[in-house]
Amino acid sequence: MKTDFSCCCSSLIPSRDTARCYLLFVLIAFYMLAGAAIFSSLERPAELQAHQLWEKRLRDFGHEHNISREDLKTLLLHYEKARTAGIRTEPGRALWDIPGAFYFVGTVVSTIGFGVTAPSTVTGKVLLVFYGLLGCSATILFFNLFLERIITLLGLLIFRCNGWKTGYRKPSVYQVTLILFVAVLLVACGAASLYSAMEGWTFLESLYFCFVAFSTVGFGDFVSGQREHHEDTWETNCLFPKS
Amino acid sequence: MKTDFSCCCSSLIPSRDTARCYLLFVLIAFYMLAGAAIFSSLERPAELQAHQLWEKRLRDFGHEHNISREDLKTLLLHYEKARTAGIRTEPGRALWDIPGAFYFVGTVVSTIGFGVTAPSTVTGKVLLVFYGLLGCSATILFFNLFLERIITLLGLLIFRCNGWKTGYRKPSVYQVTLILFVAVLLVACGAASLYSAMEGWTFLESLYFCFVAFSTVGFGDFVSGQREHHEDTWETNCLFPKS
Ligand SMILES: [K+]
Ligand SMILES: [K+]
Repeated sequence: MKTDFSCCCSSLIPSRDTARCYLLFVLIAFYMLAGAAIFSSLERPAELQAHQLWEKRLRDFGHEHNISREDLKTLLLHYEKARTAGIRTEPGRALWDIPGAFYFVGTVVSTIGFGVTAPSTVTGKVLLVFYGLLGCSATILFFNLFLERIITLLGLLIFRCNGWKTGYRKPSVYQVTLILFVAVLLVACGAASLYSAMEGWTFLESLYFCFVAFSTVGFGDFVSGQREHHEDTWETNCLFPKS
Repeated sequence: MKTDFSCCCSSLIPSRDTARCYLLFVLIAFYMLAGAAIFSSLERPAELQAHQLWEKRLRDFGHEHNISREDLKTLLLHYEKARTAGIRTEPGRALWDIPGAFYFVGTVVSTIGFGVTAPSTVTGKVLLVFYGLLGCSATILFFNLFLERIITLLGLLIFRCNGWKTGYRKPSVYQVTLILFVAVLLVACGAASLYSAMEGWTFLESLYFCFVAFSTVGFGDFVSGQREHHEDTWETNCLFPKS
C-alpha cells in the first residue's frame, strides 16, 4: 500500500534533494531582491548626480564653443564606436598586439571577460564561440584537477601535523574551505597591495578589483595592466617612492 | 626496497594525477598562445583602422568647430567618467532603479558581470565583495544541485526508454554531456532568434551574445534589455513586423 502511494505520487511530492534545490532557488531569489533594494538605494543618488553633472558639462561645452547638441552627440557616438575598438582618451597600450591578444584570451578561458577587448569582426566573434567552448571547458577541468591536488596535499599535511597519530584520511569540506579561504584572503591582500602600488588605485579599490577578478565576475571598471607606461609607474611607485 | 624508493622520491616524481594536471596546464598555455596569435591577426587590422578613423574624426571635428585638442580631450574624459556612472549617448533605461539593480545583482551572482553597471560608491564596492562572496557561492551550489537533479532525471528517462530491460543506473558522463550540449544548443538558437528580434541584432550577433552570457564570460559589448523603449521594439519587430 505504502509502496503504491509513493510510486504514483513520486512525480508530485518532491524528494528531499529536489525540495532542497527549490528552497535554495527561493532563497537566492530573495537574496537578489534584497541586494537589488540595497544597491539601488546606495547607487541611485550617485547615478542621478552623475547625470546632472554630465548634462551641465555637455551644455556648458556646447555654449562655450557654440556647437549644437546634435553635433556633439554625433561626436560622442563616434567615440563610443571607437571605444568598442579599444580606443581610450588616456593613451593605453595596444589591445590586439600579441601580448594584448594573450591577455584577452586569458580573460576568455578564465571566464573573467573584463570586456576591455572583445572581438569586433564577425570572424572573430564566430571563432570566439568555438575557441571559448573548448578553452573554458579545459580551464574548468584544470582547476578541478588542481583543487583535487591541493586537497590531497592538505590531507597529507594535516596527517603529518597530527604526527601519524590517526590514519590518513581526506580532509573535511569545512577544513578545506577554511584553509582555502584564509589562503585566498592572504593572496588577495598581497595582490591588492601590489596593484595599489602599480596601478595607482587605493587599497580598497585594489581589494575590490581582486574580488571582481578572482570571482571571475570581471566588470571591467578596473582592469590591471592597461596603461601605456606600466613599467614607469612600477618604478616610480615601488622602486623609487616619493617620500 | 621498492617501497623505500617510492617513499623517498614521492615528492620528486609526480604521481599520474599530478602529471595529468601539469600536462593540461601546458596544453592550455599553448592553446592560449595559439589563440593570441589568431585573434591578434584577426583583430589588429580592425583596431588600427578604428584608430585612424577616430583620429580623423576628432581632427575634423576640432577644425570644423575651432576647438583645441585639449578642450576636446577634457570633454571626452568627462564623458568617460559619466560612462562609468552608466550614462550613454543613446538614451537607455535607468541603471540603478530597482529593476536595474536587480539585473545588476543577477550579473553578480551568476558571475557574468557585463560591467554596464558596476558600483561607483566606496560603500557599494565594499558591500559588493561580501554580497558577491555569499551570492556566487549560493548560485554555484544551486547549479550543482540543479545539474544533479537533471542527471537523475536523465537517468530515469533513459531507464524508461530502455523499457526496464536493464536495471536503473546513473547515465555516463558522455551521455549527460551529449544531451546537455544538444539542449544548450537548442536553447541558444531559440534565445538567439528571440534576441535578434528584440534587440535589433543580427542572428550571428545574438548567438555570440548567447555564448558570452551562458559561458558567464560577459564582455558587455552586447547586453540585452538596455534600451529605453524595449517593449516598443518588441512590438514593432515581433508583433507587427515590417513585411
Ligand atoms: K565574467
Ligand atoms: K565580465
